[in-house]
Amino acid sequence: MNLEKKFSQVAKTAKASIIRELLKVASDPEMISFGGGVPDPETFPREELGEIAAKIVKEEYKITLQYGPTEGDNELKNAYINLLKKHEGIEGVSPENMLITVGSQQALQLIGLALLDEDSYCAVGKPVYLGAVSAFRQMFPKFLEIPLEDDGMNVDILEEKLDELVNKGEIDKFKFVYVVPTFQNPAGVSMPLEKRKKLINLAHKYDFLIVEDDPYGLLRFEGEPIPSIYSLDPERTILLNTFSKILCPGMRIGIIIASTDLLRKLTIIKQGVDLCTPTLTQRLAARYLQANDRIEQLKPTLELYKSKKDTMLNALEKEFGDMQGVSWTRPEGGLFIWLTFPEWVDTMEMFEEAKKNKVLYVPGEAFYVNEVEKNHMRLSFCLPSHEEIKEGIRRLRKVVENYVNANSMRSKS
Amino acid sequence: MNLEKKFSQVAKTAKASIIRELLKVASDPEMISFGGGVPDPETFPREELGEIAAKIVKEEYKITLQYGPTEGDNELKNAYINLLKKHEGIEGVSPENMLITVGSQQALQLIGLALLDEDSYCAVGKPVYLGAVSAFRQMFPKFLEIPLEDDGMNVDILEEKLDELVNKGEIDKFKFVYVVPTFQNPAGVSMPLEKRKKLINLAHKYDFLIVEDDPYGLLRFEGEPIPSIYSLDPERTILLNTFSKILCPGMRIGIIIASTDLLRKLTIIKQGVDLCTPTLTQRLAARYLQANDRIEQLKPTLELYKSKKDTMLNALEKEFGDMQGVSWTRPEGGLFIWLTFPEWVDTMEMFEEAKKNKVLYVPGEAFYVNEVEKNHMRLSFCLPSHEEIKEGIRRLRKVVENYVNANSMRSKS
Repeated sequence: MNLEKKFSQVAKTAKASIIRELLKVASDPEMISFGGGVPDPETFPREELGEIAAKIVKEEYKITLQYGPTEGDNELKNAYINLLKKHEGIEGVSPENMLITVGSQQALQLIGLALLDEDSYCAVGKPVYLGAVSAFRQMFPKFLEIPLEDDGMNVDILEEKLDELVNKGEIDKFKFVYVVPTFQNPAGVSMPLEKRKKLINLAHKYDFLIVEDDPYGLLRFEGEPIPSIYSLDPERTILLNTFSKILCPGMRIGIIIASTDLLRKLTIIKQGVDLCTPTLTQRLAARYLQANDRIEQLKPTLELYKSKKDTMLNALEKEFGDMQGVSWTRPEGGLFIWLTFPEWVDTMEMFEEAKKNKVLYVPGEAFYVNEVEKNHMRLSFCLPSHEEIKEGIRRLRKVVENYVNANSMRSKS
Repeated sequence: MNLEKKFSQVAKTAKASIIRELLKVASDPEMISFGGGVPDPETFPREELGEIAAKIVKEEYKITLQYGPTEGDNELKNAYINLLKKHEGIEGVSPENMLITVGSQQALQLIGLALLDEDSYCAVGKPVYLGAVSAFRQMFPKFLEIPLEDDGMNVDILEEKLDELVNKGEIDKFKFVYVVPTFQNPAGVSMPLEKRKKLINLAHKYDFLIVEDDPYGLLRFEGEPIPSIYSLDPERTILLNTFSKILCPGMRIGIIIASTDLLRKLTIIKQGVDLCTPTLTQRLAARYLQANDRIEQLKPTLELYKSKKDTMLNALEKEFGDMQGVSWTRPEGGLFIWLTFPEWVDTMEMFEEAKKNKVLYVPGEAFYVNEVEKNHMRLSFCLPSHEEIKEGIRRLRKVVENYVNANSMRSKS
């Protein structure tokens, strides 16, 4: 039968994740991959998680093998509230402010479902985490793409664009700004306190919500922590957290923290989405957090990531320091460095050359909505070894050289 | 801030599940509940699942604690293919025809996202499983409500309604029929082979898909198995299965089986929904299925459910056999009996009286989209003991008597 005729607009416009497609070649053992934002599995506390898993399946089976409340497991919520207090200085969150989701990705989908219609606007970074866009896009909103700077989203340009909406009489259709203010994906940059406050002021002035996605906030290697936007304005902020980067991704546990009114609405929508998040993985995370100070335990991992980040920065300096028009970010945490080439370079086009030379990155164009920039790439430093990082950046230099030589006419035009 | 202004159409029209709200009173220990379709946790193989959980977390942590493919775990898919072959006689399914979802509820949401637009039509039973409607409703399609009979959906009325669409020039907007052909929720009735074939003929004649939701097919206590619609027409059918009723619901594992073209589209959409189903619970189910013949093991559970069903049918006969205008279904499997009262009875109104008398059911109006019928109730027999079933039906008789007496004027009008 002709399925095309049956597909919805969502199906017709859904795009496969470039990252997932490109990184399918990563299984080649000779390949050095700076691709996925995938944590090192050796950092997962597998022995203890295994013990807990057996215990909660055998002893708490009436919970862990049964349907659970859509809102999520209160044991997990309370354990997480303690973590927020101790490590993020966030007070006043109660279980009624929290919804446990199937990873942050589901949180993003629920937010899109709850807030966006076809005539709605939302603002995102340029570049932006593409998973957020693929979730929001299911509702067909209009995206305002706000350039990212070394200190996060350019809030002056945001204000200009909001003023344009005011002038068009459409400001009521503007719903939220989506930001990853700490160690942004893909760029690794963070928004300082003053800029966060300015964003909050705009939220009050133009009456919008802030979706603060914070998967990397606890992965700080150096520098001073910056208060979360949520801690500065809990009423207007929807805070998204996840266990994927600080514990392990396989559990698929995300957490939405927001006002009780919004939470109730998100919960009702989640009933239609999947009834409830798996109870087994929620209780596993809860019992683990109750028995451990995960943030304390993360310290060796952060040391490791920091040293790998430094190795990559040094290698970039060594291999690309002499190359005109090439620059990169210097993150104080998270998983990513963002590398920028002269504007005529197309990193997607260059990807074939990279595969030939056995080094992988994510072409920058994966991180734009409509106004695509092609001259960037995202490099993740968390998974390859120090030696692989050095060798991979050497290979990358060769890739760029070959690409530049093959395209030397263009570079001069 | 005024959140109402920010909510989307989905948020504004989302309704909390009546079932979940009503059944919050079920925690009263004196209450006898015929409410939820919740399996008995004593039937969960907790010891073995606990052992496997520990082993796969400790030894297969690179899979079970890490991100997985959106498509799902191939180990689980292959184990399930074997189960389909052995117990359902379904051949020819390959992993490319399967997508592992977070319970069947997510399968329903993905199908809505992939196939429905605001101007689309789909057909559902009257009554219908409400979780399906709450998923599809997020896309705002038009529902054709097709009356249910003792042998499932009335396909003649379906054909009439399709002819109406042909006459209106809108048949191209008709996407699928949603059916639970075996032990339907809420009514417990099954569609015989001839009717299944007739439905398939209609699907060819009017060019639509059939969404065959089959959570209860393996819960047959008596009578002869009926071939699934999928086995009769795999090209036009989307088969939904779940482990919730045959293993345990807490894992939240559902399976979509469909043509590879549709599967690829559903997979891309799922990337935006939650990236992937938790890897830990998938591998747990896979290793369990590989080591056990679950269907063989289910036999004592089915014996238990059958005897409870018989106890309930006998109790209904005893308590309601003399009451005019009261009838009920006699399912050969599944979890539910559907009780029908004279048309003037309103089981939602009666619910207060039921709570007072410490017996719970699900008011029938929970299972209708627009054309609500109020004179039914759904009774689940799987969780209460034999004694509780007898006592609960006695209480129910009293509830109905009190309600009838209090409303005697209406009954005569």
